[in-house]
Formats: sequence, C-alpha cells, structure tokens
Amino acid sequence: MSAPAETPVFLAACRRQPVPYTPIWIMRQAGRYLPEYRKVRAQVDFVTLTRTPELAAEVTLQPLRRFALDAAILFSDIMTPLQGMGVDLTFNPGPVVREPIRTDAAIDGLRALVPERDVPFVLESIRLIRAGAPRGVPLIGFAGGPFTLFCYLVCGRPEKEFETARAFLYAQPAAAERLLERLSDAMAAYLLAQAGAGAQALMLFESWAGLLAPPEFERFALRAAKRTLAALRAAGVPLIYYVNQGSALMEAVAGVDADVIGVDWRSPLGEVRRRLGPGKAVQGNLDPAALFAPPEELERQAARVLAEAGPTPGHIFNLGHGIWPKADPDAVARLVDYVHERSARDAQARRAAT
Amino acid sequence: MSAPAETPVFLAACRRQPVPYTPIWIMRQAGRYLPEYRKVRAQVDFVTLTRTPELAAEVTLQPLRRFALDAAILFSDIMTPLQGMGVDLTFNPGPVVREPIRTDAAIDGLRALVPERDVPFVLESIRLIRAGAPRGVPLIGFAGGPFTLFCYLVCGRPEKEFETARAFLYAQPAAAERLLERLSDAMAAYLLAQAGAGAQALMLFESWAGLLAPPEFERFALRAAKRTLAALRAAGVPLIYYVNQGSALMEAVAGVDADVIGVDWRSPLGEVRRRLGPGKAVQGNLDPAALFAPPEELERQAARVLAEAGPTPGHIFNLGHGIWPKADPDAVARLVDYVHERSARDAQARRAAT
Repeated sequence: MSAPAETPVFLAACRRQPVPYTPIWIMRQAGRYLPEYRKVRAQVDFVTLTRTPELAAEVTLQPLRRFALDAAILFSDIMTPLQGMGVDLTFNPGPVVREPIRTDAAIDGLRALVPERDVPFVLESIRLIRAGAPRGVPLIGFAGGPFTLFCYLVCGRPEKEFETARAFLYAQPAAAERLLERLSDAMAAYLLAQAGAGAQALMLFESWAGLLAPPEFERFALRAAKRTLAALRAAGVPLIYYVNQGSALMEAVAGVDADVIGVDWRSPLGEVRRRLGPGKAVQGNLDPAALFAPPEELERQAARVLAEAGPTPGHIFNLGHGIWPKADPDAVARLVDYVHERSARDAQARRAAT
Repeated sequence: MSAPAETPVFLAACRRQPVPYTPIWIMRQAGRYLPEYRKVRAQVDFVTLTRTPELAAEVTLQPLRRFALDAAILFSDIMTPLQGMGVDLTFNPGPVVREPIRTDAAIDGLRALVPERDVPFVLESIRLIRAGAPRGVPLIGFAGGPFTLFCYLVCGRPEKEFETARAFLYAQPAAAERLLERLSDAMAAYLLAQAGAGAQALMLFESWAGLLAPPEFERFALRAAKRTLAALRAAGVPLIYYVNQGSALMEAVAGVDADVIGVDWRSPLGEVRRRLGPGKAVQGNLDPAALFAPPEELERQAARVLAEAGPTPGHIFNLGHGIWPKADPDAVARLVDYVHERSARDAQARRAAT
C-alpha cells in the first residue's frame, strides 16, 4: 500500500512505506558551501547565528530555495543545549569547555535541561522554519548523541581521537555512566521540546561513538542512546539514529528503537540492511568526496548507492557524512535531481513489472 | 608441529606456527610515554632523531630494556623516505609538505627512491639495532602505506578527514593512480633495503585508507598496497599489512598477499579471522584506552582479546592503534606479562587436553 498522497515522501520513507521516488536531504545542507550562508556568517558569529531565530530559520531555509530537497534540518549546533545546562563554552573554532567535566562534583553541577527556559530560541527557530518551509518538506530536529557530547565535555576541547574521554570510560566507568545518563535525559527533553515546537522527525547524531570497540559501544554509547530514544517515542514522529564510523557496530545498532539508521559512506547499504534486519529504514550514504567527481561519475556513484539500498522501501538518500565546505552547490543540484529522476524511473519500472 | 626452538616466537606466530605463548609488541612502543624517550627528545628534535642512527637505535631499544617484548620496531617516521624522494617537508608537529603534489608535473618531479643514497641513515639504524637487540627479539622494518603517504602529499598538511586527497581521487583518478604507483614502488624499494640491512619482518602502515568506501579502497589503496607487497616477497620475511578503521574492508583485505593483518581495536578478532579466512595471521587489537583501566580490568580486556583470537595459531598481541603518550609504562609492563602468562597457561592446557 502506498503512503497517502498527503504524507511527505521523506516521512513515508522513514516509515518504510512505498514512495514514488527516493527522498534526499544532505547533512549540513545549511552551511558554508553555500554563498548565501557565508554572506549571513560574514555579519554574525556562529554562536549568535544559532541563538537568533530569524537568522537560524533563514539559513535553514536557504538550501530549500536552491534544491528540491525532501527535508529541512534545523540549523543549530550539538553543543547548544549544553550551554543551556550551564556549561561554559566557547568556539575556537571547535567547542572549548572552560572546565572539563571529570569529577562527580562536576557531573552533579550540570543543570537538568528545561528547554523552554534554557533554549527558547531553538524552539522559536523551529516555529519560524515551519512557517516558512515549502509544503511537503518536513523539518528534522536534532541533537548530539550522548557519547559525542560526553567526548567534548570530558576532553574540554576536540582531540584527534578523544583519548581523554575514552580513557575516562575505562578509568571511571561508573562516573562515565552517570554523566551519560544525564546527557541522555537532557537530549530526550531537548528533542521532545523540538517535536512539541513542530519538528516532524528527530535525529540523534553520534559523531564519535564509532571510536569505541563493540563492548564499550554497547555499555556506554548505545545504552545512553537507547535511553534517549525510548523517551522520544512519546513524540510520535520518526526517529533517526546516526553513528559515524559505525561499520563494526551494526549488529548492536540493530537493537535500537529507531525508525531510521543513518549510515556513513564506508558501509555498503546492502550489507547494512542485511545486518540491521527488516525493521529499519536506512539513510545515506554517498561519500562526501564524490561531489568532487565529474558529473557522469557523480551519477554513477549515486546510482551505486541507490542500487545498494535496493528496491525494499525505507531508503532516504543522503551523504554518508556532512557536506564539505568546498563542495560545489551545482554538484548538489545535479545530485538531488539525479536521485529523484533515477529512483522515480526505477520505481515506475518496478510497478510496470508487477 | 611446533616451530623449531631457534625460531623467535614472534616470527613463528607470523607464519601461523604453534607457539608456546602469544607474542606481543606495542605500536609506537618507542615513544613519548617512556621517560627515557622524552629525555632523548629533550636534546634533539624529532627529525634529527630519525636521521641519527645511534639515537634512533637507542630509542628503538629502550622499550626492550623495560619490557619482555617479542619484537622491536625501527624508530622512524613514515614521511622519512619522502624526504629522500625530494619532498620538501617540515614537522609542525604534523608533517607539512611545502608544495603539495596535485599535478602531473609535481608527480613526475618525485625522484625514485634509492635507499642506499637517499636514506642511508635508516639502513645504518637497522644494523645498529640488530647488533644491540636481545637474542630472540626480531626487528620489524616498516613504511607508510601508499595511500597514507598520498594523503599527506596531496593535502600538504594533515586534514581532519584528508578531504583534499579524497576529493582528488574522484576528480583526477588517473593522476591519483599514477602517484600511488610511484609511492608503491618507492615503499617497495625502501622496505627491501630495510630487509637487506637486517629487518626480519616488514610492516606496511595504512593509517588513512580506512577513510575510503570499499570500491575506492580497492581501486586505489589496496591496489597500491598489493603492488608493494608483491615486490616484497623477494625479501623472504613475514609481511604485515595494517589498515586503521578497516572494519568494513576485511573481505577486500583478505586478498592481499601478506602473512599478517594488523587489526584496529574496533573489529573483534574472531569475526576478523572468519572474514579473512585461514591463510592469515592477525595482529592486535586491544583498545589503547584500556591501558587506563585498573589492573584487573586491563587483564579482563587482554583476556578478551586472547579469547577472540582463539586457539588457532597465528596471533600476535598488540594494541589496535599506537600507544598514547599519556599511557603509564607500568600498565604496559603488566600487560606484557599478563599476555605471556595467560597465553602460556592456555597453550599448556590445550596440550594437556590432546
């Protein structure tokens, strides 16, 4: 049975319903590769941009004016709610936490997040985006995964492999679990409030959990993500869980209660779907580097991703990681159009064959 | 049949012969976590250290005086032979190439490496290490994998995800293949000369090839590595191929003609051995973060690695990545002793049972 005509294609694909073409959006689609984004950033710094609803809404909507994207994603930063929890934070350009969280006292010093009080500007951004977005283009709200936030809080500043945070897991596992629980609960409150303000899908970005071996991933990162996701079911919207560098972790990831698993460019989607089982949609996973290929090669690469995802419903096309600032917007335009045309043709051929 | 008594345990394990205990060495075992290394480095800069045979030999031998390690590894840097090829290079602290290699003219401008002329100090270091190393502790020679060197040469300075090099693969695949071939041939000459000078095993470190999706890995990184490894067979010593972040690539890696596959900490060894098939030994793969655990937990983690490697001959214990500068030498001592004692006990129990 096809999705009802009024269901946006992106949301139908999240729910593994048949769709007339494969929807596509691009991680970091509102960003530095767009001249119109750089123009806004020339006037305000990054933090101001994330905290000013009119501007955050404007840059969120910019890529939708250029490209036939199937979803919008809130322009924000994964560190934003941590500022709301009382963390003293600057950007240089990566996040720098003035006092890294490494003791029980520091963990207890974190405030529980009350989104309406602590991050009202995010909720207002969402309302403005919903008012300005084209019909049929749902808005994705998002938060950082608990383990990714843990990495920044424990290390204090980005490290190449977040050694300090990973050592902390082994040296102080009980404290690590407690901090992860706090972050998990805060991100649940944050995302529920985003849904309340109008976000139509919710995504948890776990950038660094792929640095963990499977047992530590399950004990720390996955347990915390499951706690967040379980709370989010109350929102009634599709849930997306993305783990960068997750190739070795898919059997564990299969156990999360999310509708969609985001997949980086290194794991072929066909294999990922086999490892995840039939209950999950997948999102991804073109290599961000492929946008630098000549047009025919870019199409060949996009066709490969579509072929690997296969005819089973439940694929949202995306890059396997955020778009690079040097990417050419014209290549993005070609990619979006190609994915739509090619997948529509394939879907038609399948319908004709049955 | 057991290895003859005179074969060092490390070399026997590389050849998948039964051994009385599991041999162990540590990636970057000569390095900053050792106070005696920091003392040497307080007197000379890094480049001078790599180019002064007496000092390079001294720091190579330092960890062997502290720990009952089963192999030494040449102290050097993967960029050293590139300087020999005419690349203008500084360290700050990562390698910085004054003129990144991005054109056919720049590729053609690279000299073929003639090790005796271009890096005689490396060969002299090897001779000194062999003269000073304890009996039964073989010396491993090494080089960077062609794709890892390609990343540094094309980017010019380290990038978070080596975006410039990865984009180059898509934008100029023929030039990329040509540069990779040059690097492959240079590393073959370099490693053959190391074996000629006395290295008893040869390792190719591919730090960044795990950034590639499987098709690009096979087309670019793996093809170049195979070219190097094929030339190295003439040396008659065990060959080790290590790909960091290689979880998604093991089926492709199974096709290389190496005796040992180095495995990072994210891929459980049991699964890796199944994917590689019976013709390869494995090396690894304790999480470098586990050295920060309390003693009992460190032992539990080491026991897990031994259990995952299983009773089949052909396991060399190691970390899954280089040891971190903050690691405690006493934890290394405990690890080395535990791996020896536990694996000897297990081997004895197996012999008693048959």
